[in-house]
Amino acid sequence: MSVQATITEMAVRAKKAARVMASLSSEAKNRVLLRMAEALLDRQGYIRAENGKDLAAGREKGLSPAMLDRLELSDKVMQSMIAGLREVAALPDPVGEISEMANRPSGITVGRMRVPLGVIAMIYESRPNVTVDAAALCLKSGNAILLRGGSEAIHSNLALAKVLQEVLTAEDIDAAALQVVPTTDRDAVTFLLGLEEHIDLVIPRGGEGLIRFVAANSRIPVLKHYKGVCHVFVDADADIEMSVAVVMNGKTQRPGVCNALECLLVHKDIAAAFLPKAAAALRVAGVELRGCSATKAIIADCVAAGEGDWGMEFLDLILAVRVVDDMDAAMDHIARYGSQHTENILTANYANAQRWLREVDASAVMVNASTRFNDGGQFGLGAEIGISTTKLHAYGPMGLKELTTKKFIVYGNGQVRG
Amino acid sequence: MSVQATITEMAVRAKKAARVMASLSSEAKNRVLLRMAEALLDRQGYIRAENGKDLAAGREKGLSPAMLDRLELSDKVMQSMIAGLREVAALPDPVGEISEMANRPSGITVGRMRVPLGVIAMIYESRPNVTVDAAALCLKSGNAILLRGGSEAIHSNLALAKVLQEVLTAEDIDAAALQVVPTTDRDAVTFLLGLEEHIDLVIPRGGEGLIRFVAANSRIPVLKHYKGVCHVFVDADADIEMSVAVVMNGKTQRPGVCNALECLLVHKDIAAAFLPKAAAALRVAGVELRGCSATKAIIADCVAAGEGDWGMEFLDLILAVRVVDDMDAAMDHIARYGSQHTENILTANYANAQRWLREVDASAVMVNASTRFNDGGQFGLGAEIGISTTKLHAYGPMGLKELTTKKFIVYGNGQVRG
Repeated sequence: MSVQATITEMAVRAKKAARVMASLSSEAKNRVLLRMAEALLDRQGYIRAENGKDLAAGREKGLSPAMLDRLELSDKVMQSMIAGLREVAALPDPVGEISEMANRPSGITVGRMRVPLGVIAMIYESRPNVTVDAAALCLKSGNAILLRGGSEAIHSNLALAKVLQEVLTAEDIDAAALQVVPTTDRDAVTFLLGLEEHIDLVIPRGGEGLIRFVAANSRIPVLKHYKGVCHVFVDADADIEMSVAVVMNGKTQRPGVCNALECLLVHKDIAAAFLPKAAAALRVAGVELRGCSATKAIIADCVAAGEGDWGMEFLDLILAVRVVDDMDAAMDHIARYGSQHTENILTANYANAQRWLREVDASAVMVNASTRFNDGGQFGLGAEIGISTTKLHAYGPMGLKELTTKKFIVYGNGQVRG
Repeated sequence: MSVQATITEMAVRAKKAARVMASLSSEAKNRVLLRMAEALLDRQGYIRAENGKDLAAGREKGLSPAMLDRLELSDKVMQSMIAGLREVAALPDPVGEISEMANRPSGITVGRMRVPLGVIAMIYESRPNVTVDAAALCLKSGNAILLRGGSEAIHSNLALAKVLQEVLTAEDIDAAALQVVPTTDRDAVTFLLGLEEHIDLVIPRGGEGLIRFVAANSRIPVLKHYKGVCHVFVDADADIEMSVAVVMNGKTQRPGVCNALECLLVHKDIAAAFLPKAAAALRVAGVELRGCSATKAIIADCVAAGEGDWGMEFLDLILAVRVVDDMDAAMDHIARYGSQHTENILTANYANAQRWLREVDASAVMVNASTRFNDGGQFGLGAEIGISTTKLHAYGPMGLKELTTKKFIVYGNGQVRG
């Protein structure tokens, strides 16, 4: 069978299975998730052996130690997948929730019912644990899922899917609700992204290159964020000790992730008092500062920032620093260079705090907190399947609810329109 | 300036104006809308004169009387635009609403704030009143809008935009918040659909050809419905008189619209009692029936339905009729041939009603009511900018809320992640 025929058949089968998934009770879905956790435990040997094939191939291809590390289904990763399945089982089921019921002048009663999206395609790189984490969230929210991981993890992904599918079959649920694309052909992805009749949503996860490729080639709606260029603005009257702690946390706690701090904006009236303390702490943590001329006038040994440092996602121990005239200048900088991910103000000024929350356009805006809090778990969504920095459907971390939609339901007694 | 440069400049200016729109108070927005209503009244002479140019050009080009009728800004259409502006001014403002506030274990307080989408592009055909109706909804929801109407209405659309922009300027609001693309070049649309950095949402309104063109060419998220193939399923124990009335209303009250009834599914146990009565009423109204063989066995003079009649949007006094074994067969028919628009059951059976509402996948599912109720006004949204049959962001009629999104807001006191 051609790649195109294979992908089409998978999508058609997924669409059919989605109807089954949409009608499953919460109890049935939770039982499946808990049995999947058991199955991962029971079939560890098989999964490790298949993962070993990917690791061997990766070593042969000369993958970096960091990449091999991300590829490995270690004890810790296996445990985290198993724990993840159990956590998702314990989350409330969003499907079926009815809201906004109201009687209308015509006599009909109108409300909205939360329903699954249908078929979700997940396109991701390297880490095979995404196969299990994403499947758990999609199944719990009543969707079918098509998974397309990186070519270097193909054996691991197929093995994980096989084990999870065995549980579906044992529970008498169409195993097509969870499928891994069995080919590593890139054309398969391009073709899949054209199947808008069968697939309702695409979620890409990986580097900016992968995400731009998916967005550029998809006829299906895509939920994505390209990058996280997160700013903190230290206002004129911010608490200096707090500001140093929040900036340190944002930059150094986990510099390689999308909610890490990348650019510090400092009100000119607090710069002389704040910047030396911040620089001292950051220097101890090994952070390289790249400052504007006003910053360099205060922190003489910092690197001079170039235009390319504004709006840059360093994902490293590097921080761009700019002194600004006031909050409006900070907001203008963010409107120009930000990525609509996470934008924070540190301030003691009530009016500024309120204006920041209202006017700054980002998936998360915060007062007096670290950018690192932009996360589904920290926000109380339970678990996240990704973060959206586009505004349609979801803006910010996406949990179970964001994998559903609401349809209108109408109760009538024979009403007709006049 | 090239078309591409013109469109890019318009989009950049719209994006800038969107920041202004997002911060306007409800009072300011309502005042603008009411002044726009006044301005349409005051400037009727100018608007009519420009509309006259389009009508003359249309006559010369040989447009049909129906198309000329849709193009004309008659007294009635002017009145309806003015009334529409006042109605939208009276609707509650969705922007700024805060929901789901909760304290998290970390000590931060997290909630969601409703905010505008940003820049909305509207691509539509023929009727120039859409220019005003769409602008009103987008401005009230705090968005900037780019309008691209049909080439045959270009003078009318530019004149309407000019009058509305004069109000924005008089109110000291950046007039770039409302712009009509001044060229009728189709390449301008294709180019505009690639400006994902500047435009947040595209809403096409018109024939299926236009909508498919927009969906196929857009890098920007699109909210759309291709067509409305609405079904009514008459269950075994439905009230026959009510069913005749609901079917008549769905098919004949306004056959040319997307929520008109196109296909009638009848449970085999009620077919002999129901179909002759329905056929008699429909015949009087001039409706042509196209039935399956079981239907023909009861209504001898109906046309034999071909495969092409299932899933067909007739938009005319034609109704496809199929006798089915049971509700599951009706649901299978809809899953195969439906357009996810409006799917109704007529029944006295409680369990069937509940199952229908849960399991049928459409933007609106109803029990014992006419398909004609799938409408923003009837559902209580106040006014609608379109209907979405894709599930991302909005499913069903879209009102003011659907032109907004929710961002996360966080109140902290210096919290950092451990």
